[in-house]
Amino acid sequence: MSSGFPFFKGHGTENDFVVLPDREGLLHGELSPKLVRQLCDRRAGIGADGVLRAVHTDGIWFMDYRNSDGSISEMCGNGIRVFVQYLIEHEGMGGHHLIPVMTRDGVKTVTVEDDHSLTADLGRPEVFGETKVSANGHTWSALHVSMGNPHAVAFVDSLDEPGHLLDAPEHDDAVYPEGVNVEFVVRRGEGHIAMRVHERGSGETRSCGTGAGAAMVATELADGMPYRPEGYLVDVPGGTLTVRREGEHILLNGPAVLVAEGIWVARR
Amino acid sequence: MSSGFPFFKGHGTENDFVVLPDREGLLHGELSPKLVRQLCDRRAGIGADGVLRAVHTDGIWFMDYRNSDGSISEMCGNGIRVFVQYLIEHEGMGGHHLIPVMTRDGVKTVTVEDDHSLTADLGRPEVFGETKVSANGHTWSALHVSMGNPHAVAFVDSLDEPGHLLDAPEHDDAVYPEGVNVEFVVRRGEGHIAMRVHERGSGETRSCGTGAGAAMVATELADGMPYRPEGYLVDVPGGTLTVRREGEHILLNGPAVLVAEGIWVARR
Repeated sequence: MSSGFPFFKGHGTENDFVVLPDREGLLHGELSPKLVRQLCDRRAGIGADGVLRAVHTDGIWFMDYRNSDGSISEMCGNGIRVFVQYLIEHEGMGGHHLIPVMTRDGVKTVTVEDDHSLTADLGRPEVFGETKVSANGHTWSALHVSMGNPHAVAFVDSLDEPGHLLDAPEHDDAVYPEGVNVEFVVRRGEGHIAMRVHERGSGETRSCGTGAGAAMVATELADGMPYRPEGYLVDVPGGTLTVRREGEHILLNGPAVLVAEGIWVARR
Repeated sequence: MSSGFPFFKGHGTENDFVVLPDREGLLHGELSPKLVRQLCDRRAGIGADGVLRAVHTDGIWFMDYRNSDGSISEMCGNGIRVFVQYLIEHEGMGGHHLIPVMTRDGVKTVTVEDDHSLTADLGRPEVFGETKVSANGHTWSALHVSMGNPHAVAFVDSLDEPGHLLDAPEHDDAVYPEGVNVEFVVRRGEGHIAMRVHERGSGETRSCGTGAGAAMVATELADGMPYRPEGYLVDVPGGTLTVRREGEHILLNGPAVLVAEGIWVARR
């Protein structure tokens, strides 16, 4: 037991994370890809889409983000909200309106809204034009959007239309040499869409922050100028996000909640 | 935070459970089906196949077992090992060779083996004869075995043969009016089989204790008398179980491990 270390478990629109408090950076050597996979294992571990190690360095909190397969990622729009919720509840950052977080993609500033929801800056999107994606015998026209990572946004008549997404939707390898996140989007009303998302390397997930951003950018283009200042509601399977534009940047707003805290005691 | 309550997380061959310490039985009123579903939610909660509430009453520990959908079950062959592992590590039951546990199916005695694995008595099986199951356009002959709950055991040439088990395999509703757990079994060698299992109400799972028992009973019959006193190794996706017969009873042996302990802090 004494060899365990503390953790928190939280989620943002059901994109879930294990947070490892590590103010002094002592876990850096210990957090191997194997340990990340053990922590994220949904049966034999705690279970999560990723691990967020919280290190305090040079006066700022660093979010060391790991995917559940043990690999490293720069940023995660849902993860950074859970990370900031941890800082607010357990690291004395409550009461602040703007909380800076160091990531591998640079310093991101998260805004604490009056309703306690959190807004993260996803940076500048890039739109590259039309492509095609296919699944279960259907083919859709899709918009190629980069949110730092590659997306294909396809409008569908119904979220049931793509069927079971057991495998990654087929895509143009020349357009997406490193794979693609595919969003299937329907209209719900004015300024309101809903989507399903298949994430490369993860399969269909309950939510994807950058995917919501890409879906909003595609909708915005389809709706024409001027942009809606209040942005769009984006329903994902795990909840609802709000995505809006501020200048050239895309802002992602949504909830974040910590549901459990504990000690990891598994023998290594 | 102060409204939280303690939990443990553990698994037996990757059939995983939230254990709720409740010596005095104070959580009885609180543990609603809704709360069970919240705890077992793999994204928004802790995540588990079921909840095991540990209540000490009349000098014996009672395992209050709940399925992840909030419903009540009598017994669980993997769950009772995790339950006993909790009693050993946290309720002073270490050093005992035989540990009795009260369940809704009566008192079960769990044996602590020299290698620290745990053996649970699954009781008496009943064999009802041949039936058929179908999935993805294939149909197999299957043996109808009851382990208290209903099973259909089908021998297949390869564990890939049934394909993706998105939906419950089709079965004879006259034989299984309340649904059935379906085991697909291959031979691995003498006294050694491997299986996949689709559990009614849960889908395909990493392990099923009674399913391993049913698969062993079907194999035993196919192999003819006399029964192997050392039993059979049964590989499941989440590990390996040993199933053997003692008189008319089926004994299930396997590992159990607690991986985390903590406080559930989610707002209710």
